[in-house]
Amino acid sequence: MFGQIAAANALSDVYAMGGKPITAMNIVGFPVNTLDKSILADILAGSSDKVREAGAALVGGHSIDDQEPKFGLSVTGTVHPDKIRTNVGAKPGDQIILTKPIGVGILTTAIKRDLLGTDDVDQVMNVMATLNKEAAEIMEDYEVHACTDVTGFGLLGHTSEMAEGSQTGITLKMDQIPVLPKTRELAKQDVVPGGSKKNHKWLSDRVEYDSSISEIDQIILCDAITSGGLLIAVPEKDAKEIQSKLEKKDVQSAIIGEVTESNPGKIQVI
Amino acid sequence: MFGQIAAANALSDVYAMGGKPITAMNIVGFPVNTLDKSILADILAGSSDKVREAGAALVGGHSIDDQEPKFGLSVTGTVHPDKIRTNVGAKPGDQIILTKPIGVGILTTAIKRDLLGTDDVDQVMNVMATLNKEAAEIMEDYEVHACTDVTGFGLLGHTSEMAEGSQTGITLKMDQIPVLPKTRELAKQDVVPGGSKKNHKWLSDRVEYDSSISEIDQIILCDAITSGGLLIAVPEKDAKEIQSKLEKKDVQSAIIGEVTESNPGKIQVI
Repeated sequence: MFGQIAAANALSDVYAMGGKPITAMNIVGFPVNTLDKSILADILAGSSDKVREAGAALVGGHSIDDQEPKFGLSVTGTVHPDKIRTNVGAKPGDQIILTKPIGVGILTTAIKRDLLGTDDVDQVMNVMATLNKEAAEIMEDYEVHACTDVTGFGLLGHTSEMAEGSQTGITLKMDQIPVLPKTRELAKQDVVPGGSKKNHKWLSDRVEYDSSISEIDQIILCDAITSGGLLIAVPEKDAKEIQSKLEKKDVQSAIIGEVTESNPGKIQVI
Repeated sequence: MFGQIAAANALSDVYAMGGKPITAMNIVGFPVNTLDKSILADILAGSSDKVREAGAALVGGHSIDDQEPKFGLSVTGTVHPDKIRTNVGAKPGDQIILTKPIGVGILTTAIKRDLLGTDDVDQVMNVMATLNKEAAEIMEDYEVHACTDVTGFGLLGHTSEMAEGSQTGITLKMDQIPVLPKTRELAKQDVVPGGSKKNHKWLSDRVEYDSSISEIDQIILCDAITSGGLLIAVPEKDAKEIQSKLEKKDVQSAIIGEVTESNPGKIQVI
């Protein structure tokens, strides 16, 4: 699964910009003398599968002997110049759509500590390995004011960048945000990556949490994610239609909040 | 210089295919806690210079904290479908042109062992940092039967691939091959990278050396190179004209041999 996840993660940058991936190159660091080469073969096969699913061509790559395994892809895509999406440009009144559930950082930490059963492992791996292709294709037909993908800075970190860059406020509704099963239970046991706690700390003066939002939920909202969903700001008139198209394509998405004129650059979680 | 050399090396793949680099991304591994960040800044500045010289756009990149510094670029370019150059397709009678002197592996090994003066260091660094852009642009106007760039397998390794893939023989003339100053002297003292010796060994049954070719010269021909020149097979009628155009652009090139019908897949060095 690792190759598929890495590929989905790399391809996501192109999708977040509203583009179509055209070519991809593997970048590999691998301890050739200490790790079984079948591991590398699995990674490359997984990567190849996802690149094919994206409709792109895997055109080569580069590998080096390394102390620990590293894998990533360099992806090049095309986008219509009038349809380049960036993480700024959200307008007051826009609805915020998120296209994958959060909790991935906490759940993968649990996997590393051997705290998850096979089904739960499969679920989180599948979420990470899912391409943001459908979401990118659906948003092509709509006026999209801002888009980014949710990764290392967590949902609130990337939302905060959108709010700051757009000079708007953004209000998120906790009960609308899709969270993977087991995430809360694990966060309560402090199964939380260091990066998520760091995000929570540096975001503290940019986010105003309603008193009903527990510290556990705050951490979950800041959870550092690999291969997260797209975070999209669209005019209110289109939001429900987009959301229903996403559902039809089995994209686990939700309208999670809205853009406000008040509190420019800040986030409110209610 | 390291960033410039890495960029010239990465861009060379596009030039060898007859293409124009369009975009490049930096790929960085760096020990953030143990090495001074100014080293990384220098590398990135050098890379940026070369990408600009190539007329391409540096569009981003990815960096990770790593135990040792690593740097490379992922380059995407365009090429006219009728003018894609590959390392196969050489035809009997073609002349072989090489567009940079060899000896780089031996000289950089000498640098690591602190055996070279400033001027010699500058010379080899400049050879590696030189783009294959002029050579690629000149060959655009001609019928080119095969092209590759000379890197880790050495001049003979890459020539051997061309001979095998083209099902032709290739005869190289030792006294026509440009070799960097000090290379022979250092090779005699066994200042030779392990990779060059390995190349010499695996190539032994693919290359027939004239009895006048010393073992030192054999090793030099097999020297593993970073950011070497283009190796181009062109019809005899065009070879001199191409060579004179290369000279006018200050490309240190030479006609080093020819393609033969006899000895398919093999190299003769005379």
